[in-house]
Amino acid sequence: MITKKTRKQTILEESAILFNDKGYSATSMQDIASHCGVRASSLYNHIKSKQEILSTLLLEIANKFYDGIVIVNATSKSHKEKLQEIIKLHIQVAMENQNVTSLVINDWKHLEDPKLTEFVALRNNYQNMLESIIESGMEKGEIKKANVKIVINIILSSLRWIYNPKIYNNTNNEDLVELENTIMDTLFRGVIIVE
Amino acid sequence: MITKKTRKQTILEESAILFNDKGYSATSMQDIASHCGVRASSLYNHIKSKQEILSTLLLEIANKFYDGIVIVNATSKSHKEKLQEIIKLHIQVAMENQNVTSLVINDWKHLEDPKLTEFVALRNNYQNMLESIIESGMEKGEIKKANVKIVINIILSSLRWIYNPKIYNNTNNEDLVELENTIMDTLFRGVIIVE
Repeated sequence: MITKKTRKQTILEESAILFNDKGYSATSMQDIASHCGVRASSLYNHIKSKQEILSTLLLEIANKFYDGIVIVNATSKSHKEKLQEIIKLHIQVAMENQNVTSLVINDWKHLEDPKLTEFVALRNNYQNMLESIIESGMEKGEIKKANVKIVINIILSSLRWIYNPKIYNNTNNEDLVELENTIMDTLFRGVIIVE
Repeated sequence: MITKKTRKQTILEESAILFNDKGYSATSMQDIASHCGVRASSLYNHIKSKQEILSTLLLEIANKFYDGIVIVNATSKSHKEKLQEIIKLHIQVAMENQNVTSLVINDWKHLEDPKLTEFVALRNNYQNMLESIIESGMEKGEIKKANVKIVINIILSSLRWIYNPKIYNNTNNEDLVELENTIMDTLFRGVIIVE
């Protein structure tokens, strides 16, 4: 059964596209109304403010990433397998929500409290869980020993370009499979042929 | 012999720090003058505008990156060794100029023409040269075959977190050696133990 998108959901998705194109600060509620083809007065029936749109979008995506890592971490897989699952899931969540994920890089700075604190806590919890999985993997000899903070930054940073629809244009499923395989192979086996 | 920094050089360096802290748009010439401990009128003896500061900083760093890749590319090393040298150099240039390199990620958007076109051309030339080295390496079997655009994005994106002084605080040489070794090892051999 196909669920019909609510009007609010449409407004949120269209706002994410506008925030990416024009920047959060330069986008007005009037821009959002025009872009959605509704009157500004009608927009306010669904959404209180631009800040409400941004915080709804960012907390939804932060929760998606966090819920994913919690589920993978609760399995009985090895730490090495958990790490691989988490990266694969990270790519999938980012690609299914590219316009929102791209806001995670810079636009979280425009959040106001208490949503700002909530967002930063989710992001820190994600990173701490990832750190603890990698550390345990290093202790057990499943993952190569190294400075865990550097390794986490390399991994998460290496994924960030796919968030940007201007750099990676997520067009069809075949491309997505190639993207996922190339990232997994590069991160876990390295760029150069090992002979 | 220690060369004394010119007043202009000091103004440029301090401006880069301010642009990182407050953002380019929110920084005024008055802020820069106060931060450098000079009067605004005296500042204008050295620099015409905020735009001149930004374009000087960004073109200097873009030229440093580009000159580096040109020199490595002109050597008779294998493509695999060239790629490794280029990444090592990239890390070094970024770390020696961290406050300026961090502007490369977002603040180039504030450049005005003709400097904008000049900056984008340098960045594209860098990426094209890197692409051609990796492609040749793949053809010769020195570098694992994969979609070269995806591989380049993974490599360059994986380095971007070190540009940000708030994420990587470049304190001493020992840390720098660890950073360089961990990045080189992770990018070229991968995260997980290969058994």
